[in-house]
Amino acid sequence: MSAPKLVFSRRLRQTPFEKRAIEQGAKAFTVYNHMPLSSVYLTPEEDYAHLCEHVQAWDVACERQVEVVGKDALALVELVTPRDISKCAVGQCFYAPVCDENGGIVNDPIIIRLGEDRFWISIADSDVLLWMKGIAYGRGMDVSVFEPDVSPLAVQGPKSFDLMADLVGEHIRDIKFFWFIETQIAGTKVVLARSGWSGQGGFEIYLQDSSKGLDLWDAVWQAGEKYNIRAGCPNLIERLETGLLSYGSDMTLADNPLECGLGRFFKLGKPAEYMCREALDKVATEGVKKKMVHLKITGEKLTGPRSTWDVKNDQGEVVGILTSLAYSPKFDSNLSFATVDAAYGSFGQSLTVDIGGAESRAAVVCNLKWE
Amino acid sequence: MSAPKLVFSRRLRQTPFEKRAIEQGAKAFTVYNHMPLSSVYLTPEEDYAHLCEHVQAWDVACERQVEVVGKDALALVELVTPRDISKCAVGQCFYAPVCDENGGIVNDPIIIRLGEDRFWISIADSDVLLWMKGIAYGRGMDVSVFEPDVSPLAVQGPKSFDLMADLVGEHIRDIKFFWFIETQIAGTKVVLARSGWSGQGGFEIYLQDSSKGLDLWDAVWQAGEKYNIRAGCPNLIERLETGLLSYGSDMTLADNPLECGLGRFFKLGKPAEYMCREALDKVATEGVKKKMVHLKITGEKLTGPRSTWDVKNDQGEVVGILTSLAYSPKFDSNLSFATVDAAYGSFGQSLTVDIGGAESRAAVVCNLKWE
Repeated sequence: MSAPKLVFSRRLRQTPFEKRAIEQGAKAFTVYNHMPLSSVYLTPEEDYAHLCEHVQAWDVACERQVEVVGKDALALVELVTPRDISKCAVGQCFYAPVCDENGGIVNDPIIIRLGEDRFWISIADSDVLLWMKGIAYGRGMDVSVFEPDVSPLAVQGPKSFDLMADLVGEHIRDIKFFWFIETQIAGTKVVLARSGWSGQGGFEIYLQDSSKGLDLWDAVWQAGEKYNIRAGCPNLIERLETGLLSYGSDMTLADNPLECGLGRFFKLGKPAEYMCREALDKVATEGVKKKMVHLKITGEKLTGPRSTWDVKNDQGEVVGILTSLAYSPKFDSNLSFATVDAAYGSFGQSLTVDIGGAESRAAVVCNLKWE
Repeated sequence: MSAPKLVFSRRLRQTPFEKRAIEQGAKAFTVYNHMPLSSVYLTPEEDYAHLCEHVQAWDVACERQVEVVGKDALALVELVTPRDISKCAVGQCFYAPVCDENGGIVNDPIIIRLGEDRFWISIADSDVLLWMKGIAYGRGMDVSVFEPDVSPLAVQGPKSFDLMADLVGEHIRDIKFFWFIETQIAGTKVVLARSGWSGQGGFEIYLQDSSKGLDLWDAVWQAGEKYNIRAGCPNLIERLETGLLSYGSDMTLADNPLECGLGRFFKLGKPAEYMCREALDKVATEGVKKKMVHLKITGEKLTGPRSTWDVKNDQGEVVGILTSLAYSPKFDSNLSFATVDAAYGSFGQSLTVDIGGAESRAAVVCNLKWE
């Protein structure tokens, strides 16, 4: 099928940077948190190559924020994640899975601590606003939960540091990974975090007044011209190489963080109350039944699948599903994420992937570095 | 701008009918509840004309269900809506706004009562699953809340009754509006409701096994060939004429149901506990501050807006926003929904709409029949 069009409407909320993204040639979009998110400018391959060498401005306003503020803010944030948020300093960001009482993943946001009793939950694609509001209401907690007027603009790529130093000052080079400062750009106040959805380095600029979106974009753009800036977006090739999971594609409410390899971001048993304590303790005791793996697939470049492909063992039995895939120029190979029965999740395990029709391909489980 | 493409991924969940929708020529999509929803087949005008005369099959699997079952099921459903759900019989469907503790609209689903203690909430575009799960967890309610494997296929248009009588039996003509029966089609069990997101009459068939989606589609299609069936989708022109609001476009969490004219679907003060009781009582006592209106706009055919257009009084002051618009062949006029200050919401009120650039158009507030 030829790629269908996306119809815009008010329900797919306009971003403060959208006009510039379209002017710069956004050719294809997805929808994320009820907002458009550009997916391709030139081609995925050209966008990727440019990102790895230069610097890009990304309209990621769709990374919506859920603000949690008030006396019970910390207690509510602690309640929804197994990660120990009491260890997150003001000025710091924690990647932390949000899980329900069964350990199922509701979202995998970045939690930004703006104050002792004030957080932004910078979310992937599910309505964490409703989740947190519902729990707070049900518990009768003394906390306010709402979506503030905050829209991130990402500046990603190896030249992002020079660009941001020119724009804001040399002190931005001192911001540690997953920390932030509060500053002003283009006359509007922003939270400037060293973070972003690529492995190429960079920043996320949290705009706090959507009427200033084009001013912010233009300021970044102007500073970026000498660094060969282009508009860009989260890139499938790059995210596979870097090993970034996408909520909804690689993990859902049916998966728990221990199965998805997110256990390295927290230690079970933090002091605070959290709703998935018993469920994850049970998984840890019994051992995971399935496991997300990095799966390298032999042969020529593949694209797809629309939803999932079956992964099989050497008896031809289905032992898992492939959830994301891209051909990597760097590794000269098809890289994929798959969820497989735990028995087949060891590095070096040989598997087969049904790639549609009668075709199948040999594949091997790799480590996080695709080795 | 030329319409950009939509990039499909696993995160935009595949529907059980998607293959057929694409084969039948779905040219453009939106995304709704993390699923594609087709928006155009031929042109909006041709799709509309066919819908009003014949019968269409619509892939509306994106109308996801939230199943609520268990001892506290009724109490939970009552809690989230001002409508009196105790009056919904088993076998009946209630259109009912879901509101938070401030009266803000979380969603405007159809609530389907499958049993005394079992409901499906057939949702518009927000994660009601997380909302209901969060409240149930917070309250410690004895209830199970989950998304079942249920996908609606709508059969809409004046010939839908003949089609469904041929396919299922003459008794389907006895199903009252917003009631349902449980039956089988194409060897798979379905809930068959007389409902749907058009004013042209028809049914929604709730498939309960997504592996049977193409079988169900094909059975409907075969029965429909003598009635000139086509694939279709919710149509903007038809929904404006009929006065169907779209959650996210015409109303959001920032609006309450009394402002949006949804007060006619419930009577404040039902016996059961409901979380928006105080907030809506206050609105009712003080009177609504803004009001959703049917606004007819003079002059040539308009399209748009991307987000909203300003609505002004005769002093040029902004007194509201236009949220949806379509040119209606039936009324030979531009029909729109707008939210305006209550003082400007009376039938016959003259207003002006800024349609972009320096242009503006005269407009008049109409009743629900566009008179």
